[in-house]
Amino acid sequence: MAGYYALPLELLAEEFARLPGIGIKTAHRLAYSVISRSDAEVQSFVDALLSAKRDIHFCSCCQNLTELEVCPICSDEERDQTTICVVESPKDVSALERSGEYHGVYHVLHGLISPIDGVTPENLHIRELLSRISKGSIQEVIMATNPTVEGDATAMYLAQFLEPLGVKVTRLAFGLPVGGTLEYADEVTLYKALENRTILH
Amino acid sequence: MAGYYALPLELLAEEFARLPGIGIKTAHRLAYSVISRSDAEVQSFVDALLSAKRDIHFCSCCQNLTELEVCPICSDEERDQTTICVVESPKDVSALERSGEYHGVYHVLHGLISPIDGVTPENLHIRELLSRISKGSIQEVIMATNPTVEGDATAMYLAQFLEPLGVKVTRLAFGLPVGGTLEYADEVTLYKALENRTILH
Repeated sequence: MAGYYALPLELLAEEFARLPGIGIKTAHRLAYSVISRSDAEVQSFVDALLSAKRDIHFCSCCQNLTELEVCPICSDEERDQTTICVVESPKDVSALERSGEYHGVYHVLHGLISPIDGVTPENLHIRELLSRISKGSIQEVIMATNPTVEGDATAMYLAQFLEPLGVKVTRLAFGLPVGGTLEYADEVTLYKALENRTILH
Repeated sequence: MAGYYALPLELLAEEFARLPGIGIKTAHRLAYSVISRSDAEVQSFVDALLSAKRDIHFCSCCQNLTELEVCPICSDEERDQTTICVVESPKDVSALERSGEYHGVYHVLHGLISPIDGVTPENLHIRELLSRISKGSIQEVIMATNPTVEGDATAMYLAQFLEPLGVKVTRLAFGLPVGGTLEYADEVTLYKALENRTILH
């Protein structure tokens, strides 16, 4: 892809192609769309990029991404500050908040223990979690890492770690997804659904 | 989607979602990926955006996008400057150049006549085409607009216009795509393939 594209357009397409899930064809389409927009629109895009990169950092309490010193969830006095839900990434906070069912606070690990990928407990924001719990007001820690090998391993590791601190540690329930069918459920999910069956009466 | 995303991240995601074919979920994924990149990488993205918007304009000859006064194709003396291939958009120039089979020059209309969308011949770069042809050195104009209602209409309109100028006007051949099958070809394509059949011996 060279020569017959204007150079600045080609360079912009290459930048778009560096984004995850954007192939070179889509990147060219996006580059074309940018130059057909007004100067003000492009400037607003540029400002958003610079501001996001400059202003976003980790919440000093829960490590979620925020432009504030302490994120709105951590500083919300209406929320249950004695329950911490531990998640892998900021996206998981969004997902749980969308459900509207959780009223405690969060702790974002920014990764999962994964020796194959070279991620050890030291790479995660575990120290900050321990420091929060050691202050004594936390009553329950919910492990809400994904039900994968790494997610389970991280949850187990943390649970062991937290045991001596005398805090209640729970894990999200696993079972059939609502609206799912037995026929299409995998074996492990079915096993978990049976194992964790609840009493109806 | 509000509240639990940091505001600058949300604004950046909204900017990404304005791009064609990018939904709000993908936009959030892209926004996350941007803030996890280095300052230098984000700056290089920003520079590419600004440069593409600032430096790209229409070639004064063929109206293709270029950062130069006259694009490399128009200023290439090795190319046949007596044959003009008329296309809808810069993407069509790229497609034809990829084939490597065309050695003439181009003219980009930046649209097709489409009364429904309010696009009249005055909105296209037809005046510049006429001005090039009126200089007298052009021998053939190839209509390479897409085989759609608008593409055909634009080709017919231009052909009528160019007739009094005494220039040869041709249209790209339509027929079965190479590698295609009769079974899956639509009726109009089959009709065109029959109508434009060539003599083998």
